[in-house]
Amino acid sequence: MIRLVCKVWLDRGGKAFGDGPYDLLKGIEQTGSLHQAAANMGMSYSKAWRLIQTIEKRLGFTLIERKIGGPSGGGSQITPKAKTFMRRYEKFRAEVNELAERTYQKHFGSVRLNH
Amino acid sequence: MIRLVCKVWLDRGGKAFGDGPYDLLKGIEQTGSLHQAAANMGMSYSKAWRLIQTIEKRLGFTLIERKIGGPSGGGSQITPKAKTFMRRYEKFRAEVNELAERTYQKHFGSVRLNH
Repeated sequence: MIRLVCKVWLDRGGKAFGDGPYDLLKGIEQTGSLHQAAANMGMSYSKAWRLIQTIEKRLGFTLIERKIGGPSGGGSQITPKAKTFMRRYEKFRAEVNELAERTYQKHFGSVRLNH
Repeated sequence: MIRLVCKVWLDRGGKAFGDGPYDLLKGIEQTGSLHQAAANMGMSYSKAWRLIQTIEKRLGFTLIERKIGGPSGGGSQITPKAKTFMRRYEKFRAEVNELAERTYQKHFGSVRLNH
């Protein structure tokens, strides 16, 4: 069975946003911690931190901020602007994937591929 | 300026077709030679040959055949089935790129990104 793969990302002098940064931000959103989000992806903390720095620079806005105090003694959280951006990216990616699959069926749906 | 990148490929236990194989086949179509097409892409002949073998196996049909004789003493040509497949892929890729760009504008067109 042949399967279509479709990858999208934003570029501004290098990768500015795509599935990797999205997954990391999603992890921070869910765990409230960059440490935890990085660990869940098998990524070192320093690599995750550098990734966030790079993406912030390329996008031109702040993605995460420190949570000060509280029972857990702080952590990281997603900025409102980053949240809005993530929701846009989710819709954009889902829609592109669906359109790509439909376009694939249109052009290749009738092709008989052996085995 | 942020720019959208969209890559599509077919997968069947590994990459079965995408821009790389397409470019190589296009080169063979234009030059009538796998040697020449590989050289134009800065790819070794043996690597190009292995790529064709792998793609043929995954797609399940023959992509190139030897041209026997003639003034140039042979060379390679694209099979009719590969030609049809390439034309489908060109239309498919162009359409996906256009749809992806339109979807990007729809979701991110209003976003102000600094610098």
